Amino acid sequence: MVARGRFITFEGTEGVGKSTQLKQAAMTLEQLGVDVVVSREPGGTPMAEKIRELLLAPREEAVHETTELLLMFAARAQHLHTKIRPALERGQWVLCDRFTDATFAYQGGGRGVSRARIALLEDLVQGDFRPDHVILLDAPVQTGMARAKKRGELDRFEQEDLAFFQRIRDAYLERATAMPGQYHIVNAELPLEQVSASVSALLTALVQHAC
Amino acid sequence: MVARGRFITFEGTEGVGKSTQLKQAAMTLEQLGVDVVVSREPGGTPMAEKIRELLLAPREEAVHETTELLLMFAARAQHLHTKIRPALERGQWVLCDRFTDATFAYQGGGRGVSRARIALLEDLVQGDFRPDHVILLDAPVQTGMARAKKRGELDRFEQEDLAFFQRIRDAYLERATAMPGQYHIVNAELPLEQVSASVSALLTALVQHAC
Ligand SMILES: Nc1ncnc2c1ncn2[C@@H]1O[C@H](COP(=O)(O)OP(=O)(O)OP(=O)(O)O)[C@@H](O)[C@H]1O
Ligand SMILES: Nc1ncnc2c1ncn2[C@@H]1O[C@H](COP(=O)(O)OP(=O)(O)OP(=O)(O)O)[C@@H](O)[C@H]1O
Ligand SMILES: [Mg+2]
Ligand SMILES: [Mg+2]
Repeated sequence: MVARGRFITFEGTEGVGKSTQLKQAAMTLEQLGVDVVVSREPGGTPMAEKIRELLLAPREEAVHETTELLLMFAARAQHLHTKIRPALERGQWVLCDRFTDATFAYQGGGRGVSRARIALLEDLVQGDFRPDHVILLDAPVQTGMARAKKRGELDRFEQEDLAFFQRIRDAYLERATAMPGQYHIVNAELPLEQVSASVSALLTALVQHAC
Repeated sequence: MVARGRFITFEGTEGVGKSTQLKQAAMTLEQLGVDVVVSREPGGTPMAEKIRELLLAPREEAVHETTELLLMFAARAQHLHTKIRPALERGQWVLCDRFTDATFAYQGGGRGVSRARIALLEDLVQGDFRPDHVILLDAPVQTGMARAKKRGELDRFEQEDLAFFQRIRDAYLERATAMPGQYHIVNAELPLEQVSASVSALLTALVQHAC
């Protein structure tokens, strides 16, 4: 019987460096001999990626906040049950670009959906499943937006204003502060090499701790 | 201030005649001077129809039952909040081809999802909103399937076996029996003209009662 893998998520506002750090983290872990799966939310399976397209596409029809919330959790249910859990049970470590903390931050903090509604869906979809570790890349929202802007067309979320992303950053920090054992706040305003070094040191410690 | 319209849904297993009866019911109501909106689930708005496509498309990836359930309610949230409720508030009557009873019947009865999970999502999306009247077209499942078969390619639900649809019929009948005030069971095995006459008589009574 193999030991269950670890589920590690990367969180933070737009452009702070989640995808960049996740890619480097996968290499770090592989060098340490860990079997790694990388994924992202919303998405991670063909069906969940279809739901992601629905969520991100700019559209004329105003999307009701409950619709958005349920689509996020529909994609998550598919991803969790058909990809994440099976990988963890095989002993693989799963690194995921966003997870339920993003829902609390974007739909909760950003859109004002009540935390109780989100928590209810979290329980319905996940039972008591939670990330083992959340790496919160934290930087002023302008820093991330300036980094992300180089990428071209904006999706439905990226079209929101600065105050929206400020509320998201605050919501992330609030959760991280409330649950310090599970969350690791990394200063993502620093130069790339320094952020990578922090994340790498953290992962190395987690691998040593896991053995 | 206009009086709120009525929300009337048409339910039943595959091919019993929901779409046929709904079309005729709209004409009956219009002749009685009622301003009618017709719609269907899953779907009813451009975004909700996109979710419908995701739900119905046959696919290699096994769709987890929680994914399916949340997609159904995501489409419903969009439909209810952006189309059904506004129409009812304008005084229009809304006729809908399937609604939440179909979720209790298909996902609950058919797939075995717990009624409590469905009821929890019903409350989350609808609050205390429920159909004013549910017209349950009831016939042996083979009768409906024989009628529906003439239509060509089967969607993801239509590919299920007979026992699946039998459980759905039973689930519908159970709900109708438990809430007799709201449900109207119509024998849909009878020839089309007789089914139409029953539905028409029922609607005429509802309009007279509403005035
Ligand atoms: N610490 C850093 N300093 C400067 N630039 C950075 C840093 N980290 C990442 N970048 C650059 O910022 C841009 C955005 O990074 P990345 O795509 O990893 O962010 P993200 O958090 O995944 O964004 P999104 O939320 O849009 O997915 C990239 O061009 C990346 O090279
Ligand atoms: N009472 C009836 N007797 C015989 N044929 C009928 C009767 N009612 C409907 N039909 C025919 O059965 C077929 C299926 O009817 P319809 O499409 O209205 O069913 P439905 O319940 O909407 O099906 P689905 O669940 O697939 O949407 C149509 O060809 C219709 O003309
Ligand atoms: Mg990214
Ligand atoms: Mg039909």
